[in-house]
Amino acid sequence: MSDMQTQSRPRVVIVGGGFGGLSVAKGLAGQPFDITLIDRNNHHLFQPLLYQVATAGLSPADIASPIRGILREQKNVRVMLADVSGVDVARKEVIAGYRVPYDYLVLATGARHSYFGHDNWATFAPGLKTIDDATYLRRRILLAFERAENESDAEERKRLLTFVVIGGGPTGVEMAGAIAELAKRALASDFRSIDPRCARIILIEAAPRVLTSFTERLSEAARRSLEQLGVMVRLGTAVSECSCEGVRAGGEFIPARTIIWAAGVMASPAGRWLGAETDRAGRVKVRADLSVPGHPDTFAIGDTAAAVDADGTPLPGIAPVAKQEGQYVAGALIARSRGQTVAAFRYRDFGSLATVGRKRAIVQIGRLQLSGFVAWLLWSLAHIYFLIGFRNRFVVALNWAWGYITFRRGSRLITGLYARPMEDMRPASRSELHSKAG
Amino acid sequence: MSDMQTQSRPRVVIVGGGFGGLSVAKGLAGQPFDITLIDRNNHHLFQPLLYQVATAGLSPADIASPIRGILREQKNVRVMLADVSGVDVARKEVIAGYRVPYDYLVLATGARHSYFGHDNWATFAPGLKTIDDATYLRRRILLAFERAENESDAEERKRLLTFVVIGGGPTGVEMAGAIAELAKRALASDFRSIDPRCARIILIEAAPRVLTSFTERLSEAARRSLEQLGVMVRLGTAVSECSCEGVRAGGEFIPARTIIWAAGVMASPAGRWLGAETDRAGRVKVRADLSVPGHPDTFAIGDTAAAVDADGTPLPGIAPVAKQEGQYVAGALIARSRGQTVAAFRYRDFGSLATVGRKRAIVQIGRLQLSGFVAWLLWSLAHIYFLIGFRNRFVVALNWAWGYITFRRGSRLITGLYARPMEDMRPASRSELHSKAG
Repeated sequence: MSDMQTQSRPRVVIVGGGFGGLSVAKGLAGQPFDITLIDRNNHHLFQPLLYQVATAGLSPADIASPIRGILREQKNVRVMLADVSGVDVARKEVIAGYRVPYDYLVLATGARHSYFGHDNWATFAPGLKTIDDATYLRRRILLAFERAENESDAEERKRLLTFVVIGGGPTGVEMAGAIAELAKRALASDFRSIDPRCARIILIEAAPRVLTSFTERLSEAARRSLEQLGVMVRLGTAVSECSCEGVRAGGEFIPARTIIWAAGVMASPAGRWLGAETDRAGRVKVRADLSVPGHPDTFAIGDTAAAVDADGTPLPGIAPVAKQEGQYVAGALIARSRGQTVAAFRYRDFGSLATVGRKRAIVQIGRLQLSGFVAWLLWSLAHIYFLIGFRNRFVVALNWAWGYITFRRGSRLITGLYARPMEDMRPASRSELHSKAG
Repeated sequence: MSDMQTQSRPRVVIVGGGFGGLSVAKGLAGQPFDITLIDRNNHHLFQPLLYQVATAGLSPADIASPIRGILREQKNVRVMLADVSGVDVARKEVIAGYRVPYDYLVLATGARHSYFGHDNWATFAPGLKTIDDATYLRRRILLAFERAENESDAEERKRLLTFVVIGGGPTGVEMAGAIAELAKRALASDFRSIDPRCARIILIEAAPRVLTSFTERLSEAARRSLEQLGVMVRLGTAVSECSCEGVRAGGEFIPARTIIWAAGVMASPAGRWLGAETDRAGRVKVRADLSVPGHPDTFAIGDTAAAVDADGTPLPGIAPVAKQEGQYVAGALIARSRGQTVAAFRYRDFGSLATVGRKRAIVQIGRLQLSGFVAWLLWSLAHIYFLIGFRNRFVVALNWAWGYITFRRGSRLITGLYARPMEDMRPASRSELHSKAG
């Protein structure tokens, strides 16, 4: 709006509409700032439930909301769909095709999966970070069963019905559990030539236990739950090769047509945009107030930042950390505009949750440790509560209730098989649009 | 199942899992046939609501169900995901990479949009027949608003905010109405630089009225409803050019970045597979029992067939026709297996319905003509009732109720922006899989 541009309110540019970026924007509601939130997608994604889209339990729209819709009523925010390629720190401009000037910059650009130097594995072992990743994985998983049904060669059929999940963190555990339930329950009587219940789901983890951020007792409960679901869990096993034929793990070759990567993440290149110091995972080393050393008006939060706790422990890359960091930065900006100072950021840990398929989860809140059905109920409530938007919450609850009663999966669609290429559809920059129009 | 293969029950191959093909399969439930249903997608699609996916009102999974799931309990059906490329009529085999032998063949392969010889228009004016078409159109429509928001050139902004729908049949009328509601209601307060309510939606029809299959009175009611929604309706106007810059219609050039093709359909190439006689739209000219002349064991139904009524009127390409034809063919096959004969196919017309956006529709049942809200209620009930599967029906009803109360659109996702190419993911034939495995 033109009246906003002519006023001299500080311009805040937020890059990224995830949990971190969105909480900065919301924290500045009604405050005298001109905010621009830039994201390369038009939606905020509730990433903790992304594995449910990849395994056909939920639809993309159930766990994603247009960022514009979320911030519709907040008139000091402008939302921009654009792909940021860099930052001109000298002129204080974000480069997204055209240039967006800022007084304060918040980098909340998240992370992608990392293949620890084996980038060629990406083709064979796709990861799970975006809606498109999830519908791609859904297509691959469902197509593996379809192809097995049409396959006459026994060896190839076995290869098609072997699903390897690499990485025993929350995503890996959730994916392995959900694929097991898909195969052994939802698809059990859908096929004629194959029995999906014979599918092998193998979870490989290099560490000696799964879900290492939890206590040993809860890790062990999660492993037992996985094995009860029919997942083979291989601990202390490193992967040395991924190909279209399968996975080499701990010296053994496992023939498999579907491999899912959940082993590691790498921060977005935001650190490079600034020339800032980063840790090994590409996360910007931030100061106690989450600002970037040498750039007092630039903040990095969420998976983009390597923030530490009061005792120097690195904070995990989870939604609550990103949210609290976003709220803190919003408060810090308000304080600065009033000439006040703020205390260092301090993360309040309200506990951790992870789920292992239908009706099993583990919960750790301080010294309280829960596993099994009660933990799952807690997990469900927490996730439904935190999903943005009443509608989504309600539809998700309904889908869960329905899936729980019937064991069915409502979203078992293979889409994109005949889709056209999308190169021409990516967010264009202002200059590109002009040259096309001219 | 091996016990089915060793018995000498007649083998029925159905190509296509739409309304026609599915009703053949269901009509043969419990009967002594070995049925194979082949489709190139894994889902049955409720096409009448596809425009709602294209305009972000519903999610793909709300209107599509896996064919396997629908036929799960029917043990004499095998469902196959495969792309049929031809029929070997001499050997009675369907060619889908590998060969599927049949005693009876039912072709229910549907139709695609047709550009009347201007195939190059497909790039600029995509049509709406599949889930992927719908998510593609959704992306284009939503991106047009996003780009307009980032656009500084007034002329280009106007071009981005002009949506041209070509064709005033049911799909064109529904699309135009739904885009108008999206722009003028759902998106109204989401943007800062543009006002989506200023978007121009233009519906172009070569005939002198829209929805020509209805009475003139109802056509006129539909046109008025469209104009009340803010759609500009241009009747008696032929399109002579589509390009990335816009549409030339009736001599005038309309600059527009989003063009939607709803002007004509062409049957699938099933007629060519048989070397059968087809009409101008590529539909197989069938006999009174829907069998193909010269191929007494092959039937063509739905949009694949040019069937006629008792008085010689061609039957329209709508779901009720396809369903009744499918039920008829199932009955004919059962009769033949018992050595009985059947009367000619006769279509029972239960009336026609078309909707024009939120709470307006037209209904024609025999001599009864309705328009407005009551017609819309009838339309809603009929569509929810016919949606396959309780869950879908319930979720659709919920989404509609929610959209009705709030004017919001729940599925406003732009997906596939950064998706990877899918060439390697199409249904593989048995031989392809073997060569990969070997």
